Amino acid sequence: MSDSKYMKLAIKLAQKGAGYVNPNPMVGAVIVKDNHIIGQGYHEFFGGPHAERNALKNCRESPVGATLYVTLEPCCHFGKTPPCIDAIIDSGITRVVIGSLDCNPIVSGKGVKILEENNLQVTVGVLENECLNLIKSFRKYITQHVPYVFMKYAMTMDGKIATKTNQSKWITGEEARKHVHQLRHHVSAIMVGVNTVIQDDPLLTCRLEEGKNPIRIICDTHLRTPLTSKIVKTANDIKTYIATSSEDKNKMKLYQNHGCEILPIKKKGNHIDLSSLMQHLGNMQIDSLLLEGGSLMNWSALEQQIVDELKIYIAPKIFGGSAKFPVGGEGISLPNDAISLKPYAFSQIGDDYLIESEVIYPCSQE
Amino acid sequence: MSDSKYMKLAIKLAQKGAGYVNPNPMVGAVIVKDNHIIGQGYHEFFGGPHAERNALKNCRESPVGATLYVTLEPCCHFGKTPPCIDAIIDSGITRVVIGSLDCNPIVSGKGVKILEENNLQVTVGVLENECLNLIKSFRKYITQHVPYVFMKYAMTMDGKIATKTNQSKWITGEEARKHVHQLRHHVSAIMVGVNTVIQDDPLLTCRLEEGKNPIRIICDTHLRTPLTSKIVKTANDIKTYIATSSEDKNKMKLYQNHGCEILPIKKKGNHIDLSSLMQHLGNMQIDSLLLEGGSLMNWSALEQQIVDELKIYIAPKIFGGSAKFPVGGEGISLPNDAISLKPYAFSQIGDDYLIESEVIYPCSQE
Repeated sequence: MSDSKYMKLAIKLAQKGAGYVNPNPMVGAVIVKDNHIIGQGYHEFFGGPHAERNALKNCRESPVGATLYVTLEPCCHFGKTPPCIDAIIDSGITRVVIGSLDCNPIVSGKGVKILEENNLQVTVGVLENECLNLIKSFRKYITQHVPYVFMKYAMTMDGKIATKTNQSKWITGEEARKHVHQLRHHVSAIMVGVNTVIQDDPLLTCRLEEGKNPIRIICDTHLRTPLTSKIVKTANDIKTYIATSSEDKNKMKLYQNHGCEILPIKKKGNHIDLSSLMQHLGNMQIDSLLLEGGSLMNWSALEQQIVDELKIYIAPKIFGGSAKFPVGGEGISLPNDAISLKPYAFSQIGDDYLIESEVIYPCSQE
Repeated sequence: MSDSKYMKLAIKLAQKGAGYVNPNPMVGAVIVKDNHIIGQGYHEFFGGPHAERNALKNCRESPVGATLYVTLEPCCHFGKTPPCIDAIIDSGITRVVIGSLDCNPIVSGKGVKILEENNLQVTVGVLENECLNLIKSFRKYITQHVPYVFMKYAMTMDGKIATKTNQSKWITGEEARKHVHQLRHHVSAIMVGVNTVIQDDPLLTCRLEEGKNPIRIICDTHLRTPLTSKIVKTANDIKTYIATSSEDKNKMKLYQNHGCEILPIKKKGNHIDLSSLMQHLGNMQIDSLLLEGGSLMNWSALEQQIVDELKIYIAPKIFGGSAKFPVGGEGISLPNDAISLKPYAFSQIGDDYLIESEVIYPCSQE
């Protein structure tokens, strides 16, 4: 019982690193001695000390004989910082409780082995699912070298993302919109299609007080992004990439003059090859991406299987009419060919609902 | 505590009358003496004895000094049966616990008064919301003389009710579909628009083993229902009405020959006046109606404010494409003019979700 209590606190600490540690995983640690907490810490920013070292540094008394609770298996290799395993062994800690093993093939299971060889008692798998959830972007990024992609849309209860006159402000209430800004803070990058830029002229920033703006990416096969758009006009302040298959150097120059960077991506059919774009982004250390596309972009992303997860906000209202819907494009013909979702969480946010689902592609069918 | 325990049982008993008591309300009763149940009963079918009389009849020992738990205030007037109040007083019961007062203006509060005048102890309002929920169709029907209307649709998580090639079998799983058949069993009538008959050729029966088929109603302004449709071909066995503004007597004759009845309804714009149709149905003792319309019918029903409640089944899948959506028609232009829903229940049925909401029309805004 108390193992999970302390692990819950470690998870909460880990989450404080959201948005700042990417592409590292969020990790939290708590040190407990004689049933009271003597130290706690988390991985605060990319390149900074790991959670275990922060918890040790914050100890109010000697950790000799104490138990360390850590959401992720401690590292045993030199990365940006020296291995945490050494610091743990040196500290005199005698028991380590681990949420989940590391998915990085360089470390997985090795940390546990070294701790045991040094006579520390090790328990693995306390609140494992919650701990795995903390590192889901990291797991994909570290094993596949591409970002974990969240697709987000907000729709009415009759499946509309705008009215018939294309008005979409606002579908959901303030609390749900704030929730989206937390997502934007959380991810490394945000992506839309050029049509969304042309129609809605969004800024795509994170409007939380302590929020961090994600890198902005526009998928723009033919370089149609308006130079007068808010995104282009703020590109000197917020990192902005235009992914394009165009080879028009003169046009590129115009965007570059505004501070945008051009990502040359090959075509697949009439559009950018999204898989190829994801590989580029992975190489740029972008571990997580929020897709806030329109119906065509959303379909392309699902069809090209780059989406890991859907976050669907549903507002308790009806628009009616022939209005825009969240996923368009080619679509499927037979119900059995539908793209399957595996919902894992349902919540109410203000007056709205949020359904969070993983996407199950045919090749990954369980 | 034990009051609500016994009321819970009374509610469960009441629900057994679903589909059989309309347009009467569902009512359940439990008689308790010395902390054990000595009798129970419910209103089993329209015209049959009320719950209180059934519970008294089923008593295994004398009810003298016992407590009666009943979901709805006992009646004190002669209807199809003599007033229950008399039977309760005669029985020697000394305490009556009532879930909700009657909403029928002839009875409301009067039963309680008579019981108290006869020195019975009366408690009102135990599990009141659950008890009011049992009589929601009845409340509208008895006060407004029109049916309580449930609108139901099943959609994907991208808001589609069919694929781009108009395939809709199946969107939801077996359990959700069974749930719809329970709804069909529950209501007095089921209604669709003629387009649904032409496109889907449904039977609209209740396919539960012990289920009851609701009366079927087709909204067919211009008498376009195919004579070869399943509904028309089974109209001799299952009561079927065609609501129409057509005056073509020869055409009507053809449907009548198949066993359909014609409901002449005036027009509103280019379609049947649905409010007028609801008044007709109320006069026909139809207290509850399930609307399984297509997108045009759904919009008309919402626009004409005949819908009380929406039951939206959401399947964890994506169809994409330009496919049918649940509510079409004219639609609204500004998000602020949306039809507001007030969700009151959310559940998971098999792999699907069900969101149940009341509809809040501007004039009834809270």
